[in-house]
Amino acid sequence: MNYKMVLYLIGQLLRVEGLLLFLPLLCAVAFREDTLTAFLIPAVLLIAAGSVLTFRMPEKREIYAKEGFAIVGLSWILLSVFGALPFMLSGTIPHFIDALFETASGLSTTGASILQDIDPLPRSVLFWRSFTHWVGGMGVLVFTLAVLPKSNERTLRLMHVMRAEVPGPTVGKLVSRVKSTARILYGIYIAMTVTEFLLLCVKLPVFDALCTSFGTAGTGGFALWNDSIAHYQSAYAEWVIGIFMVLFSLNFNLFYLLLLRQFKPVFKNSELRWFMAIVLTATALIAYDVHAFYGSAGETLRHAFFQVTTIISTTGFSTVDFNQWPILSKTILVLLMFIGACAGSTGGGLKVGRVILLAKTFFREVRHMLHPRSVTAVSIDGKRVDEEVMRGASSFIITYIFLFAISVLVLAVCNEFDLVSNFTAVAACINNIGPGLEIVGPAGNYAGFSDVSKLMLTFDMLAGRLELFPMLMVFSPSIWRNH
Amino acid sequence: MNYKMVLYLIGQLLRVEGLLLFLPLLCAVAFREDTLTAFLIPAVLLIAAGSVLTFRMPEKREIYAKEGFAIVGLSWILLSVFGALPFMLSGTIPHFIDALFETASGLSTTGASILQDIDPLPRSVLFWRSFTHWVGGMGVLVFTLAVLPKSNERTLRLMHVMRAEVPGPTVGKLVSRVKSTARILYGIYIAMTVTEFLLLCVKLPVFDALCTSFGTAGTGGFALWNDSIAHYQSAYAEWVIGIFMVLFSLNFNLFYLLLLRQFKPVFKNSELRWFMAIVLTATALIAYDVHAFYGSAGETLRHAFFQVTTIISTTGFSTVDFNQWPILSKTILVLLMFIGACAGSTGGGLKVGRVILLAKTFFREVRHMLHPRSVTAVSIDGKRVDEEVMRGASSFIITYIFLFAISVLVLAVCNEFDLVSNFTAVAACINNIGPGLEIVGPAGNYAGFSDVSKLMLTFDMLAGRLELFPMLMVFSPSIWRNH
Repeated sequence: MNYKMVLYLIGQLLRVEGLLLFLPLLCAVAFREDTLTAFLIPAVLLIAAGSVLTFRMPEKREIYAKEGFAIVGLSWILLSVFGALPFMLSGTIPHFIDALFETASGLSTTGASILQDIDPLPRSVLFWRSFTHWVGGMGVLVFTLAVLPKSNERTLRLMHVMRAEVPGPTVGKLVSRVKSTARILYGIYIAMTVTEFLLLCVKLPVFDALCTSFGTAGTGGFALWNDSIAHYQSAYAEWVIGIFMVLFSLNFNLFYLLLLRQFKPVFKNSELRWFMAIVLTATALIAYDVHAFYGSAGETLRHAFFQVTTIISTTGFSTVDFNQWPILSKTILVLLMFIGACAGSTGGGLKVGRVILLAKTFFREVRHMLHPRSVTAVSIDGKRVDEEVMRGASSFIITYIFLFAISVLVLAVCNEFDLVSNFTAVAACINNIGPGLEIVGPAGNYAGFSDVSKLMLTFDMLAGRLELFPMLMVFSPSIWRNH
Repeated sequence: MNYKMVLYLIGQLLRVEGLLLFLPLLCAVAFREDTLTAFLIPAVLLIAAGSVLTFRMPEKREIYAKEGFAIVGLSWILLSVFGALPFMLSGTIPHFIDALFETASGLSTTGASILQDIDPLPRSVLFWRSFTHWVGGMGVLVFTLAVLPKSNERTLRLMHVMRAEVPGPTVGKLVSRVKSTARILYGIYIAMTVTEFLLLCVKLPVFDALCTSFGTAGTGGFALWNDSIAHYQSAYAEWVIGIFMVLFSLNFNLFYLLLLRQFKPVFKNSELRWFMAIVLTATALIAYDVHAFYGSAGETLRHAFFQVTTIISTTGFSTVDFNQWPILSKTILVLLMFIGACAGSTGGGLKVGRVILLAKTFFREVRHMLHPRSVTAVSIDGKRVDEEVMRGASSFIITYIFLFAISVLVLAVCNEFDLVSNFTAVAACINNIGPGLEIVGPAGNYAGFSDVSKLMLTFDMLAGRLELFPMLMVFSPSIWRNH
C-alpha cells in the first residue's frame, strides 16, 4: 500500500471540500445569518489538513487498484465527517451521528433525512445540504480530474480510481482520454443544472430553484420544505423536475455522443431503451392504479410520472405520500427502487444496465444447460464445483444481497420498526433513494432510528454510492497490510 | 427432442403415482369412508395412461440434458394435476385450481394450504395430503431409480435427470453408482421416517404419528389439525419433530458416509457445520427475544428451536403464531426462509451450501479486485464486458431474483394483500416452506388469493422444488423445437 500517495490524493479532495464551503459561507453573508463560523471553521480546518497532506508530492507515485479503492472509500468517509461539522456548529443537527448521517446522505445523493422540521432552518445550512448533492452527484472524482494536470502516469492511476467510482458495470468511453472527457461531462452536468435552474425560476423563488436543481442534478432529493416539492403547488415545476430526474438518470456518455452528433448509437442504446420502457410502463400502471385518488387524468398522470421518476432516478423528491397508495403502486415503486437509474449517471440502484446484464446471464445459462459441452470444476469441501459457478456480475449482486441481509438484521437487532419500514429503509439507503415506506415514507423521516442503525444505514448509503466494494475494502484488514 | 423417450419415462412415473393411490384407498377402506371412488378413479386413470405410454420401449433411447429437464418439469406438473383429482372427487376441494395448488404444495413439500378448516376432513384425504409430502420428499426420481433396471445407457440418462432433480449445487457422490446409491438413500429415508413414527407413537395416535412423520420426512408441513403440531400439546412430540426436521435438512450423503463408518468427512463438512451454527445462533437469538412471552426457559427454548427448525428445514409445521413475535424474531425467520436446508436433503430454500458458495464467490472477487491480473471481455451494446461477469452460481441467484420479483408483481397486479403478506407468500412458496407472515402466517392460509395468484404460487412451489430451471424450461418454446 502506497500510503503517502493515498494521503496525498485524499488531501487534495479535502482541500476541494474546504473551498466549496465558501459558497454556503457567502450564502450566510448574503442572507445575514449567524452561521458564518459554522462554515468558516470547517473550511479552514479542511484547507489546513489538505495543505499539510499535499505539501510535498510523494516520490513514489505508482498506485494500483488497492490504493484506488482505499482513496475512494476513505475520502467519502472523511468528506462526510468534515461535511457534518457545519450542521453541528450551526446547532442545526447537534448530535454527531445525526449530522454524519445527513451529510453522507447528501454526498451519496441519497436524500434520506433525520430532520423532522426543515422549514425553519437557516438558508445557508439548507444551501449546504442541497449543495452536497450536487458535489456528490458527479462524484468528487470529476473535481479531482479537472484539478489534476495531464500525465500518463496519473491517467493510469485515475483509471483505477475511476473504475471504483463511476457508477455502473462499464466505464466505457470514459476510460479513454480521461481528463478531457471528464471536463466535457463536467460541462454537461453544469449546463443541465443551469437549464433546470432557469426553467424552475419561472415559477419558483431563485433560491428554491437553485437548491432544487442541485437536488435533481445529483439525483439526491433533499428539499427546502417539509412537504418537499408539493410545497410549490406547481404542476409546471413538477413536470420540469420530473423530466430532469429522467435526464439525470441517463448515461452521461449519451449526452457526450449527442454533442458529437453521433445519434445512431444513442438511439440504439439498449439501456436507454429499457429505461424509457420501464418508466413509461410503470407510469401507465400506476396511473391506472391510482386514478380514483385524483381529480383529472392530467393530475393522475403527473403524480404517477413524478413518483416513478423520483424513485427510479433514486432522487427522492416527493409530491404525494405514496405510502397511502394501493398495493400495486407500492409494489411497483419498491421494485423500481432496486432497478435504479442507468450506469454512468448520477443515479443509484442496481442500474438498468446491470439488470439487463443479469437477464442476459440468465438466458445464456439456460442455453448452456440445454446444450452442455464442457465440465470444469473448482473445489468446495474437497469436491470440485464448476469454475464458472464462481465468478460473475454475480459478485456484485451477491455482495448486494449479503449487505442487504446484514443491514436488515442489524436494524432488527436494534429493535427498530416493522418489516416494511426496515426493509425499505435499507433499500432506500443502499440504492441512494431517500424515502421508503411506512416510518420512512415520503411523509416520514429517519429520526426515530437508533445510533447503531443510523451508522449501518450511513454505511449502506456510502457503499451503495461507491458500487459496494470500496467501502467494504476500507473495512477489511487485508487492504491495509503492506504486501 | 426425443419425445418418445420423454413420454415413456413420464408414463412410468404416472403409473407409480397410480399405484401409490392404493394406499389412501386402503385407508378409506380401513376407516370406512365414502372416498373410495375418489382414489380409485384417478388410480385407474393413471395406471391406464402410464401403461399406454410405456407399452413399448422406444428404440432410440438416448436422452440429453434437454430431455432430462423436460421429463422432470413435465412429470411434476402432470403428477400434481392427477394428484389433485382425489381432492376434487371427494368434494374436499371442489375447485380445480385450489386442488392443484394443494397437491403441488404437497408434492413440492411446501405445505402451503388453501384449506381453511382441516379438522373435519376424511382421514383418507388427509393421508393422501400428507403422503404427497413423503412421495415428493425424496423426489419421484428415487422411485424411478429403484424401479428401473441397471443399464449403462440408462445410468447416463438418469444422471441428466438427476442433475436437474437433486437439490443443491452439487450432486457429489450421488452421481457415481447412481442406482445402488439411490437404493441406499431410499433405505435411509424409510428408516428415518420409521424411527420418527415409532418415537411419535409414544405420545400421538398412530395415524397422526404416521402422517406427521410423512410431513417431517419430506420437510413438507401439512398437519392433520388446524392448529398444526400445537394441537397435541406435547413438549415431547415438539422436540422429536424439531430434531427430525434438523435431520431431514441434512445432506443424505452424510448419513450414507456414516453408514460406511467414514466419520471424518462428516464432521469436517462445512455445510453441516454452518447449518448447525445457524440453527443454534438463530435459536439463541430468538429465545432471548421472546423470553417474555413464555413461562419457563424450557418452553421458550422449545418454541424458539421449533420455529427455527420448521423454517430453516422449510417444513412449516407450527406450534405458535410467530406472526405475533417481535421484529427481531420475525426478521431472523424471514432470513432463514431464504437460506433453507442443506443441499442433498429433502428441504428447500437457497440451500446452505449455495449460500457458502456465494460467500466464497464474494471473497474471491474482492481478492481479484485488489490484485487484478487479466482483463477479458464479452459484448453488450457492442462493447466488451468481462467474460467472467457473465457466468456463475450467479445464474441461479439471478433467476431466483427475477422469478421472485415477477411473482411479487403478479400478486400486486391481482390486487392481493399487503407487502409483507405478498412478499412472504412468494418466499414461503419458492423456498417450499408453507407459512409466511400476516395473511399467510402460521394462523392464516392461502385461501384468499385469486386464481391467477394461486397459479403463480403453484409455479413458484414447483420451480423452487426443482431448482428453478426445469420448470422455466418447460415453459420456454426453444426446448420443444426439434433440433
